[in-house]
Amino acid sequence: MKTLLLNHADVRENAPMAELVPAIEAAFGAYERGDAQMPPKSYIDLPQYNGDFRSMPAYLDAGSWDAAGVKWVNSHPDNPEQFDLPTVLGTMIYTDPETAVPLAILDGRTLTMLRTGAAAAVATDHLAVADASSLGIVGAGAQSYTQLRAISEVRDIETVVISDLDEERVAAFIDEFETDYDVRAGSVAEAAACDVLSTVTPVESPIVSRESVGEHTHINAMGADAAGKHELADGILLDSKLVIDDYEQTTHSGEINVPWSEGVLGDDDIHAALGEIVVGTKAGRVDADGITVFDSTGLAIQDVAAAHVAYEHAEDNDNGYPFDLLGLA
Amino acid sequence: MKTLLLNHADVRENAPMAELVPAIEAAFGAYERGDAQMPPKSYIDLPQYNGDFRSMPAYLDAGSWDAAGVKWVNSHPDNPEQFDLPTVLGTMIYTDPETAVPLAILDGRTLTMLRTGAAAAVATDHLAVADASSLGIVGAGAQSYTQLRAISEVRDIETVVISDLDEERVAAFIDEFETDYDVRAGSVAEAAACDVLSTVTPVESPIVSRESVGEHTHINAMGADAAGKHELADGILLDSKLVIDDYEQTTHSGEINVPWSEGVLGDDDIHAALGEIVVGTKAGRVDADGITVFDSTGLAIQDVAAAHVAYEHAEDNDNGYPFDLLGLA
Repeated sequence: MKTLLLNHADVRENAPMAELVPAIEAAFGAYERGDAQMPPKSYIDLPQYNGDFRSMPAYLDAGSWDAAGVKWVNSHPDNPEQFDLPTVLGTMIYTDPETAVPLAILDGRTLTMLRTGAAAAVATDHLAVADASSLGIVGAGAQSYTQLRAISEVRDIETVVISDLDEERVAAFIDEFETDYDVRAGSVAEAAACDVLSTVTPVESPIVSRESVGEHTHINAMGADAAGKHELADGILLDSKLVIDDYEQTTHSGEINVPWSEGVLGDDDIHAALGEIVVGTKAGRVDADGITVFDSTGLAIQDVAAAHVAYEHAEDNDNGYPFDLLGLA
Repeated sequence: MKTLLLNHADVRENAPMAELVPAIEAAFGAYERGDAQMPPKSYIDLPQYNGDFRSMPAYLDAGSWDAAGVKWVNSHPDNPEQFDLPTVLGTMIYTDPETAVPLAILDGRTLTMLRTGAAAAVATDHLAVADASSLGIVGAGAQSYTQLRAISEVRDIETVVISDLDEERVAAFIDEFETDYDVRAGSVAEAAACDVLSTVTPVESPIVSRESVGEHTHINAMGADAAGKHELADGILLDSKLVIDDYEQTTHSGEINVPWSEGVLGDDDIHAALGEIVVGTKAGRVDADGITVFDSTGLAIQDVAAAHVAYEHAEDNDNGYPFDLLGLA
């Protein structure tokens, strides 16, 4: 009995967006139907290291498959400067729900980036205009790459505007994608005027103004993942069809957490959870809609679904490194 | 940057009781002093598989070292019959608290057995008579082996009475230890008359009677780990100096959970948490004491401390399999 080890490159290779996006959509559907279990994240705060850890366990039954596991993830903002390491690392244990055998251990950092991109794609599919062809991205870090790759699965993106104060990161992004897209550097306002906008920054005061957003733009607000963070002006949220990934998480640490806790934005301003749109109990974009916003905090069910895809794909293709962790025979 | 993989055999080899017992004692001390963080276990119940998963995250600072990690563990009672697998498996992610780098992935099943034995040893050291030389064990499963090995670290055990209805398991236990100990099969009452008694069964109605327990016997009640389970007659608990590992866990799922929830036993009957004895705010055994009981449910801080020992020992001895999980350089 072996446990499959999937490192950075293995996860990337074995979680193609064409498989990942439908799996993440299925996960949101299962969650909405009550076919998932996702206990609240447990936090361990380590102020002495300016860091924290979170454990994210989940189970989901998507009908044709089910999956269970836990991701152990962190945020250590001093890592880049002090240790030449990423702020966010992570490790995922993926288990067979029926027997609890650990089927795979995966690099959780890569998994997180991929499943976050895939969630934006699911939201974009339901909320962007059907003929969306331009994508603006604010923030040219690691998450920007998976935003473009994932969203391209659900819309025929031709033009990309990348906005970041760091010119090196902008150049690297353009270098990566210029053969496949009409991609150029631009201001936040130019990015916000696109058919689809993804914001992937850690800012604590809004950088996208109400005026800059296109009339029918769909926005994926991906950056906020802690109390105090938000990227979008309140006016955008109030004028939009607002969709969240999870009520508890978004009101606590998502894009809406600041205006929600200040009373600027209330529960009535939230149109739906993404799962409700996936299963059809709430509408996605309709002709009358203007701006739409998806507030994403990242759910443990996404990690488990992404691990399922990566494991199955790796098994089918003899990828990864099989290791006898249990030593049972 | 590599992550060290420690399988079943590696964990056993690299967590010698001589190092493990003091590390577990340090963990209880850190927890009592407030130098540990241990969010409640998160449960995922899967009745369709007659199983459950638990995530157990923890951090502890023992002074000369600190450690963080999560254990993903389960209970699938149908595993042995249906799949020829153990009921309890488990995987541990052990991380550097300062950077969150995953230092090691460990077989959590072996780790659980070892750290559970070590906790019994810490309790025995503080609660058994100083010249204890006989050990009774009720239940000859996997946990019985680590009970004897661990307790032998803190007392000069010469005589062992092993009690189990399964003769094959008794024979295997005797076969393992007969060269080092005067070990024989016996009744529960004979085991209970020893200086130290460890009960490691999953029973739901008591099998150790009040009359059978020796006048100064220290009992490690290790078996109960879920609501409804208990191994000792209420009279034993009421007549003993009663020590617990953790208030929330023991009243919910430890040896005392049944009499506590029935009101037979109250908070006033609990002498101390083991950590209080370790740091010296409460007394261990004193001359006047008769029976003592340690109610162990198993804490996440034990897993993290045990992982620390196994990782450091393996690093020092070039054991385990280094794997580039992160792919960072």
